[in-house]
Amino acid sequence: MSQEDNKLPGENYSEKIRARFWITGENSGYVGIGRIELLQRIDELGSMNKAAKSMGMSYKRAWKLIQSLNEMYDEPLVVKEVGGKFGGGSVLTARGKKLILDFKRVESELQSFLERMSSVI
Amino acid sequence: MSQEDNKLPGENYSEKIRARFWITGENSGYVGIGRIELLQRIDELGSMNKAAKSMGMSYKRAWKLIQSLNEMYDEPLVVKEVGGKFGGGSVLTARGKKLILDFKRVESELQSFLERMSSVI
Repeated sequence: MSQEDNKLPGENYSEKIRARFWITGENSGYVGIGRIELLQRIDELGSMNKAAKSMGMSYKRAWKLIQSLNEMYDEPLVVKEVGGKFGGGSVLTARGKKLILDFKRVESELQSFLERMSSVI
Repeated sequence: MSQEDNKLPGENYSEKIRARFWITGENSGYVGIGRIELLQRIDELGSMNKAAKSMGMSYKRAWKLIQSLNEMYDEPLVVKEVGGKFGGGSVLTARGKKLILDFKRVESELQSFLERMSSVI
């Protein structure tokens, strides 16, 4: 196996075909597998800082990324919680949660599609 | 539009979803849209040198790439023609031609798939 083969592009979605995809925003921007991971971790951890750290990403980079992702649609994907017991945390909006579900749905159907194509080429 | 939007990843296959894919070899290696372009140009121009030049690629880089692509399957994708009127040129083998057709088929069906998914997310 050559060194090149250790660095295959895309995700291993099927036997013969690898792929990657990105959902583009209505206004601007896009999310791929890495950005969806960040959004999922914010959803799970309730904190942009914890989410960033868990991915080895600086808070500054995560914050800038989220600022940009929040421009994708008219509704932001992530908002800061203000006050209350968990004040200061970050939560996903309905739009943010829908985007994760959409991404997972496309990913799952893409995998089935590529497996079918893999068996006919 | 931010600067980031000028550099969207992948190909513009559908309204809301962009993608890229790679066919992996039985033995090693892979082809994506750029390598398929190189193979197509070799097929059209009958010359690895002309194909490389037409893509602004050095002959050395094209040659190394083809050496690696020729390892994908037991049969090489590109062979040198020896002797005859066109001696010295390069031609695609049946395996090379099949790979281009397979890639175009997957690309066309992927585009239809993504257009369908684009309308339901």
